[in-house]
Amino acid sequence: MTNDKVTLIVGGAGCIGSEVAGALLRQNRPVRVLDNLSSGSLRHIEAFQGNPLFEFIEGDVGDYSTAAYACANVEEVWHFAAKTDIKFLEDYDFNADVRENFDTTWTLLRAMREEGVPRLAFASSAAVYGDRALLQEDLRPAPVSMYGATKLACEAVIRALALRDGLHAWQFRFCSIVSGKFRRGGNMVVPDFVRKLRRDPKRLVIYGDGNQTKPSLHVSECVEAMLYVMDNAPANGDVWNIGAPDAISVTRQAEIVCRAMGLRDVEFVYTGGAVGWPGDVASFHMNVDKVAALGWRARRTSEEAVILALAGLLSQPVEEDA
Amino acid sequence: MTNDKVTLIVGGAGCIGSEVAGALLRQNRPVRVLDNLSSGSLRHIEAFQGNPLFEFIEGDVGDYSTAAYACANVEEVWHFAAKTDIKFLEDYDFNADVRENFDTTWTLLRAMREEGVPRLAFASSAAVYGDRALLQEDLRPAPVSMYGATKLACEAVIRALALRDGLHAWQFRFCSIVSGKFRRGGNMVVPDFVRKLRRDPKRLVIYGDGNQTKPSLHVSECVEAMLYVMDNAPANGDVWNIGAPDAISVTRQAEIVCRAMGLRDVEFVYTGGAVGWPGDVASFHMNVDKVAALGWRARRTSEEAVILALAGLLSQPVEEDA
Repeated sequence: MTNDKVTLIVGGAGCIGSEVAGALLRQNRPVRVLDNLSSGSLRHIEAFQGNPLFEFIEGDVGDYSTAAYACANVEEVWHFAAKTDIKFLEDYDFNADVRENFDTTWTLLRAMREEGVPRLAFASSAAVYGDRALLQEDLRPAPVSMYGATKLACEAVIRALALRDGLHAWQFRFCSIVSGKFRRGGNMVVPDFVRKLRRDPKRLVIYGDGNQTKPSLHVSECVEAMLYVMDNAPANGDVWNIGAPDAISVTRQAEIVCRAMGLRDVEFVYTGGAVGWPGDVASFHMNVDKVAALGWRARRTSEEAVILALAGLLSQPVEEDA
Repeated sequence: MTNDKVTLIVGGAGCIGSEVAGALLRQNRPVRVLDNLSSGSLRHIEAFQGNPLFEFIEGDVGDYSTAAYACANVEEVWHFAAKTDIKFLEDYDFNADVRENFDTTWTLLRAMREEGVPRLAFASSAAVYGDRALLQEDLRPAPVSMYGATKLACEAVIRALALRDGLHAWQFRFCSIVSGKFRRGGNMVVPDFVRKLRRDPKRLVIYGDGNQTKPSLHVSECVEAMLYVMDNAPANGDVWNIGAPDAISVTRQAEIVCRAMGLRDVEFVYTGGAVGWPGDVASFHMNVDKVAALGWRARRTSEEAVILALAGLLSQPVEEDA
């Protein structure tokens, strides 16, 4: 280990966190990943093992002593750990969103304060906006899911600590971030389609009516955008939309996946309804003027991002999509 | 006890909660108060003791088994329990706002769900708005205190449960509510001035520069407004500003207190600065068009509300202001 202060990535074995780890390691920054591997995977960080700048701790940030241990000698935290699934169904664990989004974040904030960690990048979500057609930072957030509500709760507390307690923070509201990595749990559209079509290349079940249309951003651009904002915007706890300015429908993504897999005449079976699940938001665009005014914008369209992510997914053998 | 379902008032020994208890008892509704007496007082509910419709439980709603016990046979909860003090100073208990505002509310929500309690009235706060000159429900909340941030967190979760989990809820953002009762702890302007002037009738220390100007509503009208909204608006978890449309400065309140106490030539000593403490909001008005459109509006000006509250405070012997 060097004497340089460490950057801690909480949830760093996930699809986005592991990209951040790679980007920081390429800048020769010492990186520590804390992940409980509930949805993250060792596969996503195996390329970093053996790098003297890299360190992995398997543990849960919701456990205070683990969080404090992980924060030792850290100058900056990127926090991606969250509940895997946005859905809130009737048979669902009522406590899951509060516990896995809010309580864990608060535990991390307490540990950071105790260990004197000054800087935080927080991964929030477009879900804080609720059922809106256009997501814009200065609109009133109105989450329609417990996932969005608890992300908003985190944002509010982080912002207050930035104003009142000296925390340096940036907060990001992501659109759908697509990557070439499979994730356990959760329900990312493209990897879900790939998995299903590998099992049954004749028939694809699609949640909702397939017209849900949302922006998609490739994970590499997402990481680039966060780094850009952190380099160029004040650390005042403000929130930043990170997304593509256009959008892509679920059915269009299904078509792209089928074509890339060389499948024809796949039957699309829609579960029906305008939204994929209760608490889903049917369709939206993301206003990205604020980050554009700072000087960053997505280079790829949502469709290009999906195609790039799909190429990564399809390059992996079948046994890795579990 | 009757067979009627009970209304539970959490924080019901406080200045507002005890008024609600009185109003419901006058409607012959069975009332149960849960209060840990951290800032509430038995004095505020002593008039109800002996009423067969009234029941008091001393306990903390943040303790799950206490909350569940208090929710038995309840049809409606009014939730006023909160951190007493909005201030967040450097030597402050870092966890207090999250624990006393958010965690307690979440514990109550879990208990309500487990016990099948369908209805909730939640006392939020104008502090969710942050540093704005005009508080309006459809503006983006931007709390500048941990108190406001954790109240916003509660609101978000309650709203999501109303949309997703069948909770019937109304949420209220109060301006300053003035009453004829002294409260332990906290820092309500008028009772604070009365206490100080009883100790030293020559000299009054005033936080800030005294120009902080905010709406004041008398507690009796606050209770009336909540009852009106709950009778006339859908229980969809929406938020309602409850306040007077005008405002009154801190110095003006000091002048009114001095006059009512028959004091002349009191020296006002200002601690200085535009706000009373870090995280305070200097001055604001409250837009009350939404509740007015529903059919309710304050009858008293802010000054009349202060004068009425003051009459109640001054009618109490000195030993009761502790």
